Amino acid sequence: MNIYDITLPLSEDLPTWPGDSSLSMTRSSDLAKGDIANVSKLALGVHTGTHIDAPCHFEAEGVGIDQIPLDILIGPCRVLEMTALSEGQEIDRPRLEQLELGGITRLLFKTRNSRWWMQKDQTFHEDFIALAADGASYLVAQGIKLIGIDYLSIEKFDNPGHPTHHTLLKNNVVILEGLNLSDVPAGDYELIALPLKLKGADGAPTRAVLRK
Amino acid sequence: MNIYDITLPLSEDLPTWPGDSSLSMTRSSDLAKGDIANVSKLALGVHTGTHIDAPCHFEAEGVGIDQIPLDILIGPCRVLEMTALSEGQEIDRPRLEQLELGGITRLLFKTRNSRWWMQKDQTFHEDFIALAADGASYLVAQGIKLIGIDYLSIEKFDNPGHPTHHTLLKNNVVILEGLNLSDVPAGDYELIALPLKLKGADGAPTRAVLRK
Repeated sequence: MNIYDITLPLSEDLPTWPGDSSLSMTRSSDLAKGDIANVSKLALGVHTGTHIDAPCHFEAEGVGIDQIPLDILIGPCRVLEMTALSEGQEIDRPRLEQLELGGITRLLFKTRNSRWWMQKDQTFHEDFIALAADGASYLVAQGIKLIGIDYLSIEKFDNPGHPTHHTLLKNNVVILEGLNLSDVPAGDYELIALPLKLKGADGAPTRAVLRK
Repeated sequence: MNIYDITLPLSEDLPTWPGDSSLSMTRSSDLAKGDIANVSKLALGVHTGTHIDAPCHFEAEGVGIDQIPLDILIGPCRVLEMTALSEGQEIDRPRLEQLELGGITRLLFKTRNSRWWMQKDQTFHEDFIALAADGASYLVAQGIKLIGIDYLSIEKFDNPGHPTHHTLLKNNVVILEGLNLSDVPAGDYELIALPLKLKGADGAPTRAVLRK
């Protein structure tokens, strides 16, 4: 069985969302200083790197990350390659209507965004490819339960009113962001996306893998 | 398919190892204060709650948590119930020699420790049941690749020289600590234990599940 790790490595080199807390990892105990073990502490925003947005990220009445059912986070998944789109474009309803999504409940969009991860680009890019609000409504109507994308948000940068997030989170669609899909061919896989079990949190860093 | 979540919920209520960093989660943006979203930041020791120890936790030349192969973290696993042991006792070689472990590479010990999690006990207990050094050597010789236990360390509290950790980590055996096995009957499962992909870290908080 082939396992693809589609998770970004967490380090201080990783670009974070403008205004978000930066990541820090420091050793509170260090073998090199004569301590008996290495012991590190970590500080980060819960939407850092590969992560899941919980409904309560944008919805006052939404559940926290620890309440997302495991049987949505694990199961069959399709990786769709959207190579025709370039920087700043959105995946919209007309484009999605051309796809045959029968029986699919988990969908990951592989776009040109992934090349920034492959290049270990430390800059935050505002012109990433994202899911349009009408695309989100269409996918909800199609019965999609989990959507993933290969940049730090599913929604275009600074989108007024954040309709893509609201549409998905109001309908309890799981949003998996910050994937690196550069090594993954389009096709069908088993997805395993496990967020930290942070009580009541609006999101959590997540380890995500695909199995073929 | 049945999925058991064997992960401790991460919150400020969870007991941490004496001397370790405490967990804090705070909102840097809050819907209730008129912000457009809830956004939290998290600070914690990497050995908090359910977590994996990387070889470099105790071995200067050991690899970091991001280098542990996924095919050890995912796969068939046996849950062994060690109900005869009481507080402060260790799982030692004579006890392990009685078991039939042929073909097993991943092993989780369910002990009386799990009741503290079931009771949501906020106290750190020093007299948890642990794996003895001779038990660790025996399991390495048997070809075990991953060992899990239901308290915050595999090794008894303040054990001089930490021989259990050294034996396991020198041999690249994955140590999965802080499991809550109270709801899981003994038997065979598929384990999925995914740590955060923290570059070079000595450990990482982990979401762990069993599938039957």
